[in-house]
Amino acid sequence: MTEGTTRLETFSDGVFAIAATLLVLEFSVREASGARLGHELLHLWPSYFAYVTSFLTIGIIWINHHYCVATLARCDRVLMFLNLILLLTVGFLPFPTKLVAQYLQQPGEQAAVLAYGATFIVMSIVYNTWWRYASHNRRLIRDDVPDSTVRAISRAFNPGVPMYTVVFLIAFVSPLASVILTFAIAAFYLPSAALFTER
Amino acid sequence: MTEGTTRLETFSDGVFAIAATLLVLEFSVREASGARLGHELLHLWPSYFAYVTSFLTIGIIWINHHYCVATLARCDRVLMFLNLILLLTVGFLPFPTKLVAQYLQQPGEQAAVLAYGATFIVMSIVYNTWWRYASHNRRLIRDDVPDSTVRAISRAFNPGVPMYTVVFLIAFVSPLASVILTFAIAAFYLPSAALFTER
Amino acid sequence: MTEGTTRLETFSDGVFAIAATLLVLEFSVREASGARLGHELLHLWPSYFAYVTSFLTIGIIWINHHYCVATLARCDRVLMFLNLILLLTVGFLPFPTKLVAQYLQQPGEQAAVLAYGATFIVMSIVYNTWWRYASHNRRLIRDDVPDSTVRAISRAFNPGVPMYTVVFLIAFVSPLASVILTFAIAAFYLPSAALFTER
Amino acid sequence: MTEGTTRLETFSDGVFAIAATLLVLEFSVREASGARLGHELLHLWPSYFAYVTSFLTIGIIWINHHYCVATLARCDRVLMFLNLILLLTVGFLPFPTKLVAQYLQQPGEQAAVLAYGATFIVMSIVYNTWWRYASHNRRLIRDDVPDSTVRAISRAFNPGVPMYTVVFLIAFVSPLASVILTFAIAAFYLPSAALFTER
Repeated sequence: MTEGTTRLETFSDGVFAIAATLLVLEFSVREASGARLGHELLHLWPSYFAYVTSFLTIGIIWINHHYCVATLARCDRVLMFLNLILLLTVGFLPFPTKLVAQYLQQPGEQAAVLAYGATFIVMSIVYNTWWRYASHNRRLIRDDVPDSTVRAISRAFNPGVPMYTVVFLIAFVSPLASVILTFAIAAFYLPSAALFTER
Repeated sequence: MTEGTTRLETFSDGVFAIAATLLVLEFSVREASGARLGHELLHLWPSYFAYVTSFLTIGIIWINHHYCVATLARCDRVLMFLNLILLLTVGFLPFPTKLVAQYLQQPGEQAAVLAYGATFIVMSIVYNTWWRYASHNRRLIRDDVPDSTVRAISRAFNPGVPMYTVVFLIAFVSPLASVILTFAIAAFYLPSAALFTER
Repeated sequence: MTEGTTRLETFSDGVFAIAATLLVLEFSVREASGARLGHELLHLWPSYFAYVTSFLTIGIIWINHHYCVATLARCDRVLMFLNLILLLTVGFLPFPTKLVAQYLQQPGEQAAVLAYGATFIVMSIVYNTWWRYASHNRRLIRDDVPDSTVRAISRAFNPGVPMYTVVFLIAFVSPLASVILTFAIAAFYLPSAALFTER
Repeated sequence: MTEGTTRLETFSDGVFAIAATLLVLEFSVREASGARLGHELLHLWPSYFAYVTSFLTIGIIWINHHYCVATLARCDRVLMFLNLILLLTVGFLPFPTKLVAQYLQQPGEQAAVLAYGATFIVMSIVYNTWWRYASHNRRLIRDDVPDSTVRAISRAFNPGVPMYTVVFLIAFVSPLASVILTFAIAAFYLPSAALFTER
């Protein structure tokens, strides 16, 4: 039932693209910044930083999602459900991104960054579950996909949850370091995610 | 005229995906929450709750919509019109969702939850009419779709309007209970909606 | 070059769906409406009215657009340009819709409704030009499309600009009547637009 | 691997369409403009100007993007990465557009227009890099695409970065002239961009 996986992809792609583009709505400058606008724009760096980090992360999830779905022979009710939960967490990302943009280096930054980190933890748990369910005993995997490919994808999923848990815990010590690490993960993962596209 | 049903699906999918993703814009924290941000984020639970409920409901409508459209041989002017009205109600959902997010457990919660419930009633009346019109005397149904499938879908549509009417009426007694029930309906319907995808 | 017309349709559909769904962002209630929320929601009727009117109008443009594009053999540089201008005006619609929603029956309603009417005039001029250019001497029309079809579409386009000009002028006398007429045009055009889909 | 390029296009088209449509959210009038609304709407001309300029520019990038992708035989990991960075800059455009809309002819206009110009510089650097990478030694170009086509596209890309650098520098002397020039570039490029579609 490849028809089922096409459907899965179209709706998911829509949510990924919209969530990524809605991130821009986090940017705002105080009303009537006037002559100090230039100064204010430079001090928006937490907004730029959070925007790039979240945008790249959604991009990676999108690239990986396509690659994973391409290995599926069909889609069943549980995967459909897990996929909806995944989209629910990706669609939620603009809110914690906005919190980081507004509160980083301000009072309240720890709560903002913890919310950001928690969202990434939940997202990677759901995404891992999504893939484990599809690939367990090759439940939904196409016959012509070699075991080695399935194992390679599973290995790529492994570090997600522990990495974001560390990022979350670091926010208790240094919120800024936590966001930098979230960015570093995206920057590091991007080439390997894009790598999938070449095969 | 399957070309006509493809068209129906593409535009509908776009509106479903955008409406679901716009739900995130309901979230907001008071300006300058500062050090109390963590506290404030925890007290946003009505926002999280309303977000999940509306997102899942749109997801279910989307999954069912695909399944129903797949049974159609063609699309006529009335169905096109009914579909536009359905999209109009789905596209409206972010507003009552925001009302519930802002007013639940606050003064005004009853009006907010009644607006939320009324939206679901209208949505299920329109969606029912959409399906009744398409399936009445197999008006637009494909020849190779068995009667039993048509009847099964009709049966799945039956409880929608009465259920949401009860949910609406409960809001007069307890707004919170009404929202919990709306969530429960989504959670309960989701597996059976996803079930369609397997056939 | 049907590839060219597919491209035209995909991007256009995206803008139509997003513009229609963004209309919901016009709705807002005063902060802390509290116990008077129910009262306030009832007084939002200009918002509901403007939302339905704009949503249906975008829906009609979308349905007609598909039908017109289906008669094209190819797309050239001028049509691509005119189409972009059409999307620019459709993408702008949420702003005057918001003005009508906020100012109808308030001081300033005349300016708001004139802006709304002017947008519809520009939109119908651009859309007419779009179709006249494509159909003039059958410039871009597919060989297998009969002349009678081209003439029927042209006839359907004819009343657009004069009708919206009247609607605009009426706003000088009665802004409310002008908006009611805009809605009536959408409601009246919808079945005939949907009618296209049946052929 | 044309499958890879289809994927590239679908996600890119989504982001282009959404970014263009989100531009409308920049428009706002002061609360309670009341009877002076008409006056205020006329004074919003920097908003209209910025909206049209940004919308047309995104339209041109979209048309060119399709034309360039149509020359590609496949997509590799670096192009996927560069494309994501391109989408990141296009998705960011609504923010500097909003700054220009709010600050042009107001204190702070220079900072706003510099931010606008800088975004276009970054966008054209990324887009140039995207194409140089794909076309260098015909790395990803389809065998049936003649060298002359590749060279023609490269020539069309050449003026981008220097032109937007000049536009940026002009903002130090006259912010208004800088925005007028940005609009002129879009208006001038549009026909030649659309020209691609005819071949």
